[in-house]
Amino acid sequence: MMATLDAHLNTITTKSLQDAMRYSLFAGGKRLRPLLLLATVASFDSSVADAMLAAAGLECLHTYSLIHDDLPAMDNDDLRRGNPTSHKKFGEALAILAGDGLQSSAFELLSQTKTSPAQLAKCLQLFAQAVGANGMVGGQVLDIEGEHHHLSLAELKHLHALKTGALLATAVDMGAVLAQVSSADAQALHQFAASFGLAFQIQDDINDRTKSTQALGKTANKDIAEAKNTYPALLGLDGARAALAEQVQQAQDALAQLSKPVPELAAFLTYFDA
Amino acid sequence: MMATLDAHLNTITTKSLQDAMRYSLFAGGKRLRPLLLLATVASFDSSVADAMLAAAGLECLHTYSLIHDDLPAMDNDDLRRGNPTSHKKFGEALAILAGDGLQSSAFELLSQTKTSPAQLAKCLQLFAQAVGANGMVGGQVLDIEGEHHHLSLAELKHLHALKTGALLATAVDMGAVLAQVSSADAQALHQFAASFGLAFQIQDDINDRTKSTQALGKTANKDIAEAKNTYPALLGLDGARAALAEQVQQAQDALAQLSKPVPELAAFLTYFDA
Repeated sequence: MMATLDAHLNTITTKSLQDAMRYSLFAGGKRLRPLLLLATVASFDSSVADAMLAAAGLECLHTYSLIHDDLPAMDNDDLRRGNPTSHKKFGEALAILAGDGLQSSAFELLSQTKTSPAQLAKCLQLFAQAVGANGMVGGQVLDIEGEHHHLSLAELKHLHALKTGALLATAVDMGAVLAQVSSADAQALHQFAASFGLAFQIQDDINDRTKSTQALGKTANKDIAEAKNTYPALLGLDGARAALAEQVQQAQDALAQLSKPVPELAAFLTYFDA
Repeated sequence: MMATLDAHLNTITTKSLQDAMRYSLFAGGKRLRPLLLLATVASFDSSVADAMLAAAGLECLHTYSLIHDDLPAMDNDDLRRGNPTSHKKFGEALAILAGDGLQSSAFELLSQTKTSPAQLAKCLQLFAQAVGANGMVGGQVLDIEGEHHHLSLAELKHLHALKTGALLATAVDMGAVLAQVSSADAQALHQFAASFGLAFQIQDDINDRTKSTQALGKTANKDIAEAKNTYPALLGLDGARAALAEQVQQAQDALAQLSKPVPELAAFLTYFDA
């Protein structure tokens, strides 16, 4: 996927913009969203190579969201994955535009994906909804607004589902579309992805409390300093760990409903300290 | 199209985000891009109603670009269409996110357009390229970087082609796809749109010098104050007017090559003071 992203970046004629987009795309992320899509496709014996452009698009979407979340007007972070954030490195204007360009690139890469027009249309719908006002962007708004008041557990779950869950779920859902799985399998996969997404965010909340800035690659204890709404803040560390274990169990249960074993996807659950 | 945009906005569950997106979408723009698309579709006897969602998407893309261009880190404008800019009204964080959400909404509306999957795939490609790093976003980067040095006429043309021209051309190109015109007509339409787009930007440059802040709905003489690269700055006002007349003539010539008269599109050329 690095090659796919690199080839796309090389088509960008404005050098400074290409540099800023590359900087954040190649900053050592876990590639979780593209890997989830590719694992789903591989689990159902569909072509990983054909799905590569859509996978690269998911990484562009995720990276765009990180650049914008880090901006001074948002979370005002100086450090991301151990490196200066985009606006620290390139200035605010270019950081905003690199994020904007990465969102467009995501859709451009999706449009080039090797699949039928009908499947592409379905993927486009999933993609656009996951990142839009009722997805990632809406979640970021709730996150910022939540800083000024205390959220209930239901509100926090909703925030996480939009901000982090929607794109993770879409990675799996798009894999299901591209691999043309049965509707029963698609439903189980979606349930897996929803639980995985929430577990991922709870783990992130826990990590902020328990890991060092160096281990995180971003400023630790920032959630406490900013009185952010998190699972540990609402339920305590032990309560958060119990909630995490519950989501991981639900994700496992969902995989067990599939018409075939999917070790590629089950492997993702080893990510959690549950 | 107001109804289409309104219906889409009403689906957005996060109220503050919906408000911010609505504020800029309903700020009295000329709706030039959607109108160009719909006029192209109507000229070739295709369904305007079926193309409405794609047209609404174009307006979302344009509005997103205005919100981000106005940000403090970019052009730092307080006034847009006679009203406070988004960040003045809602703060910088929500303005950035409203822009982000509008870009996603554009693709979501496109994905719902009544057309065949194959035509939708073509439109997606046009759409994503027009707004991305080799389109609108790239043009904005060149615009900002150009503030620090003098551009040649060729460089200024390139900047305008990306920043303003690409999306205007795509409005017509998408109309051609949706109306399934012949490839000869599609080519002539594209030439029309390219000339129209450049003419539009030259007119904008001229207006900045010759019209009042009240008439413009945005701060007049801003280009001079910021030593922006513009046609009047490079060629003088008379030279700029001559360049405008040349582009309008080329747009007319392109329309004359079409297989049928298109009064709906020709009418757009009356916009210019050429």
